[in-house]
Amino acid sequence: MWQGTIKYVKLEECLKAIELHVRQSLPVEEVEISNAYGRFLAEDVISNIDVPPCDIAHFDGYALRSNDVAQASPTNPVKLKIKARLYPSTKELISLGPREAAYVATGAPMPLGADGVLPVEASVVKGEYLEVRYGVRPGEHVIKAGSDVRRGEVVLRRGHRLRGQDVALLALMGFTKVKVFSRPRVCIVPVGDELADEGNVLKLGEVPCSHALMIGGFVLRDGGIPMRLAKVPDDPSLISEAILRATSFSDLVLTIGGASRGEKDLVPTAISRVDGARIIFHGMMTRPGRQTGVAVVNGKPLVMLPGLVQSTIVGYQLIARNIMFKLMGLEVDDLTIKARIAHDLELPQPKGFKRIVFVQLERGNDCYRAWPLRGESAILSVPVRAHGYVLFDEGLDYVEKDSMVDVHLLN
Amino acid sequence: MWQGTIKYVKLEECLKAIELHVRQSLPVEEVEISNAYGRFLAEDVISNIDVPPCDIAHFDGYALRSNDVAQASPTNPVKLKIKARLYPSTKELISLGPREAAYVATGAPMPLGADGVLPVEASVVKGEYLEVRYGVRPGEHVIKAGSDVRRGEVVLRRGHRLRGQDVALLALMGFTKVKVFSRPRVCIVPVGDELADEGNVLKLGEVPCSHALMIGGFVLRDGGIPMRLAKVPDDPSLISEAILRATSFSDLVLTIGGASRGEKDLVPTAISRVDGARIIFHGMMTRPGRQTGVAVVNGKPLVMLPGLVQSTIVGYQLIARNIMFKLMGLEVDDLTIKARIAHDLELPQPKGFKRIVFVQLERGNDCYRAWPLRGESAILSVPVRAHGYVLFDEGLDYVEKDSMVDVHLLN
Repeated sequence: MWQGTIKYVKLEECLKAIELHVRQSLPVEEVEISNAYGRFLAEDVISNIDVPPCDIAHFDGYALRSNDVAQASPTNPVKLKIKARLYPSTKELISLGPREAAYVATGAPMPLGADGVLPVEASVVKGEYLEVRYGVRPGEHVIKAGSDVRRGEVVLRRGHRLRGQDVALLALMGFTKVKVFSRPRVCIVPVGDELADEGNVLKLGEVPCSHALMIGGFVLRDGGIPMRLAKVPDDPSLISEAILRATSFSDLVLTIGGASRGEKDLVPTAISRVDGARIIFHGMMTRPGRQTGVAVVNGKPLVMLPGLVQSTIVGYQLIARNIMFKLMGLEVDDLTIKARIAHDLELPQPKGFKRIVFVQLERGNDCYRAWPLRGESAILSVPVRAHGYVLFDEGLDYVEKDSMVDVHLLN
Repeated sequence: MWQGTIKYVKLEECLKAIELHVRQSLPVEEVEISNAYGRFLAEDVISNIDVPPCDIAHFDGYALRSNDVAQASPTNPVKLKIKARLYPSTKELISLGPREAAYVATGAPMPLGADGVLPVEASVVKGEYLEVRYGVRPGEHVIKAGSDVRRGEVVLRRGHRLRGQDVALLALMGFTKVKVFSRPRVCIVPVGDELADEGNVLKLGEVPCSHALMIGGFVLRDGGIPMRLAKVPDDPSLISEAILRATSFSDLVLTIGGASRGEKDLVPTAISRVDGARIIFHGMMTRPGRQTGVAVVNGKPLVMLPGLVQSTIVGYQLIARNIMFKLMGLEVDDLTIKARIAHDLELPQPKGFKRIVFVQLERGNDCYRAWPLRGESAILSVPVRAHGYVLFDEGLDYVEKDSMVDVHLLN
């Protein structure tokens, strides 16, 4: 049974606890490659074929045997018999004998025996003959079989999120389907008596369910399927019920609010009332974000996201997102940008706490400049104006102008 | 009538021609904010209210009048009568008289007359009285009305692509709907006798429709709705027909392939056969990408994307994407990262041509390093291994190691 106190744990310890308690559990599904954009690969992709599967012409021109034209020059042209016209769609393989050539369009399979292409611009055609006035190097203007991908090569790694060009490469390797992780279903449970019904005009004592919308957007960004439960009032039984229901159809539950130490912060109590539920940690040594917690309920991970909006964001970015990746057996790999802090920055913070500062980026000549944004953790316009955030280590209470930092991008 | 020759035009001229011929034409639609993630704002968003609408408590504690406790100290505590308990959900406004206090939970509206909060940790409660042993500054632990957003403030700009936090801010400002641009419907028309039917085992003379899949992914990434027509053979009448059909239900048509100078490059011919169709330019001084062209067909913009895959990408990134934004009356704003080129780089290129080089990024201490990736323009594994690309200006045929470049990210 949870004791009702928040015990602050170092961020590294929180991440270790997640490592320990959240196991890879997302099922693998096979999807058509035309549907695979944005999905995470569930296994390494190894090519079963060479790409291209045979030598192909890289230019419109004439395929020929470079040996035949080694001595060719404007004063000593070599005549080759034009034997065929080949296109990428040509369905027969032909071969060239000595002193034979074939027209090839870009992308056409090279005839057997040919090892170079004379570009059409340099070609002189007289009836059925090609007059070659320049030497052609072996391999010139030819894309060799396997020069894009070699058979047996690992081209894309497990965990890679598929982009347009990756899907195209899957097609070139002859795949029509690919194994990806199921998209994590993330159930968002907004908690609070003050939450308004959606679409209503706000009255005193009502606050819109804004944070749930925000987290829904983050989940989409990160490849998950956001599901939102209706708002739950500050009642431990109703919260327990909602949480338990959420675990039944989702892979990860995120409560928002009710995780602090006030008398209406009932999420920890509600969790402790669920049979077999366990709070892994509650309290994280970051500011904002310190009320963040993680539990396991009904075998599913649950993150208690704090209600002050910057804390909600930090709890999501550092913890919930991490768990989404852990469900796939993956590590989060943030895109970070190096930037120089635009002015001196004081970082008052309790001992041992890391500090998250939202920043706006400005292009500089050599490097981005990061402008720290000021504002209490309840202020949403700060992350709205921000391009990203910087995570400052504990014990660092002053940062000088021009210090180099890593900015974690927010989109 | 198009003359069948490619006339290479400087990239800047291509962009100017687009500016001239493509007008803002995407309709504006109003969507629920819960559905607005990833959409582009069609107008500036101005707040009609202060956010928060009234002063609210930033801490669990006791709201009080700072004047009352100005002299308070551990040896000289001040007693205040606790008049009420207030929560974010409290529906009545109360006011504090002299020597009165009220419990406030974080997020509760401050009572009238109160101007500071004594945190619960510092509070000593004796029955109905609060003993205050420390002064509280005016405004301490209070989020002032309008301190997040001021009424009348422009918070989000037309053209901004909505992220999670932006949608949340819309909710806080009391909006339930928002005006966004319709997602551009982008019809992809793959052209070529060699294109295989989807899902078939490939035979000699068949190539998968990989590029159309790739461009479909890019369109999704950029907020559009990709639509793919079935492959069209190298037949000008069929291409004309397909293009015309495509313009009837899309905002932008992208042909892939058939735009070069070979005898089967029939897209320009097909375009010129459509009544009233006009080729704006065909031929762009970039490598790869030089066969890119733009036309207006049936009043809709059409981009001829070249068939060699790196050219296809360049044509999309520099031209098609630009048009997608122009349809919203917007400018493309690429995310670029500063990086240092990892080794000396030769950039042989025809006079006046800009050069695009795909690069892999490696984290360095101070700055990313960009490793140029080698490979003919038909090689897809190059953009697959790339994080982005660098656009080098014309006339630059040699770049020294450690030169600083802007890397345009590919995802």
